[in-house]
Amino acid sequence: MSRAIAGPEIERLIQLLAKLPGLGPRSARRAALHLVKKREQLLGPLAEAMAVARERIVVCSRCGNVDTRDPCGLCTDPRRDDSLIVVVADIADLWALERSGAVSGRYHVLGGVLSALDGVRPEHLTLDALVARASEPAVKEVILALNATVDGQTTAHFITDLLTHLPVKVTKLAHGVPVGGELDYLDDGTLVAAIRQRTGF
Amino acid sequence: MSRAIAGPEIERLIQLLAKLPGLGPRSARRAALHLVKKREQLLGPLAEAMAVARERIVVCSRCGNVDTRDPCGLCTDPRRDDSLIVVVADIADLWALERSGAVSGRYHVLGGVLSALDGVRPEHLTLDALVARASEPAVKEVILALNATVDGQTTAHFITDLLTHLPVKVTKLAHGVPVGGELDYLDDGTLVAAIRQRTGF
Ligand SMILES: [Zn+2]
Ligand SMILES: [Zn+2]
Repeated sequence: MSRAIAGPEIERLIQLLAKLPGLGPRSARRAALHLVKKREQLLGPLAEAMAVARERIVVCSRCGNVDTRDPCGLCTDPRRDDSLIVVVADIADLWALERSGAVSGRYHVLGGVLSALDGVRPEHLTLDALVARASEPAVKEVILALNATVDGQTTAHFITDLLTHLPVKVTKLAHGVPVGGELDYLDDGTLVAAIRQRTGF
Repeated sequence: MSRAIAGPEIERLIQLLAKLPGLGPRSARRAALHLVKKREQLLGPLAEAMAVARERIVVCSRCGNVDTRDPCGLCTDPRRDDSLIVVVADIADLWALERSGAVSGRYHVLGGVLSALDGVRPEHLTLDALVARASEPAVKEVILALNATVDGQTTAHFITDLLTHLPVKVTKLAHGVPVGGELDYLDDGTLVAAIRQRTGF
């Protein structure tokens, strides 16, 4: 905004909100206004929740997840399968897998994928830590749960090579038709993969 | 989320962020993750800015704007024109007008528009206060800067009737072609208005 309208306090709130993914300058203004109108129901509680998160949230030094303790709850939960490491690019992917309830092993967050375009090289990812963890005797399988993009698959191949000398099975997510997906909306690559990896009834 | 994944602190942050306009559950998770990753650069400052806003922002008892003082800076600025009251439905409209720099009078925020559908009746708006302000001797004109919607225009007519006994001129925003607007994308009503209210070169 060229003119400060609502005082520096609201301007600052708008500017910081505009840095959140999914909020542009316009929606940040709407969000700030909404917050100011709902001071007791929303602004206060959100300020408090952010202060608590700032104070208490740490990155797990083992897997890269975020939690209020290190190692995190997923790393220390005794009911989870120690023989299985699920490798994800980002914490958001970890959350998505946890929501699905698809797997109950340990996780390893890479912190991204290799990308020539974005200048992400192996040393930018937590690959050394992954190799160390995959070398632990309990580990039997490493699932590469990476996006089915060029960068994701390049990263998967790179990790497969890194782990090839270890006695662990390296697997990746199946390609196929999404549940509820309609065939004529899918790209050819997905259809080819779905046919190739077809399963018996 | 059916399963608590990242601890109650992050869950609470996600739930509160999801209440912001423009953020759904999915984008609230992304925003929370972004905040946690940018703890020092963003989460801390935003928590602080919200705490400051919560502490200091008040609604102006005169115009309905929000500011850190009451009456607000727009109501007390001696350079602004006391003879002009710009009536808006919402603070967001006030901000939009201020950004445009189109007018430099005083404002009056109605707190909404009359709406049979949403059950908004005259007593829900700050109409008594508007009549009182418009009765002050300094006031010469009241600009009804309301949306060009049915409810906005119904409200404009209602206010015009309320003020008819006062010695003030009541005006409304011109209809017409938006600057940069292309004629064949405009609705007929706008085109008719633009022709009717055409101006000389
Ligand atoms: Zn962990
Ligand atoms: Zn004011």
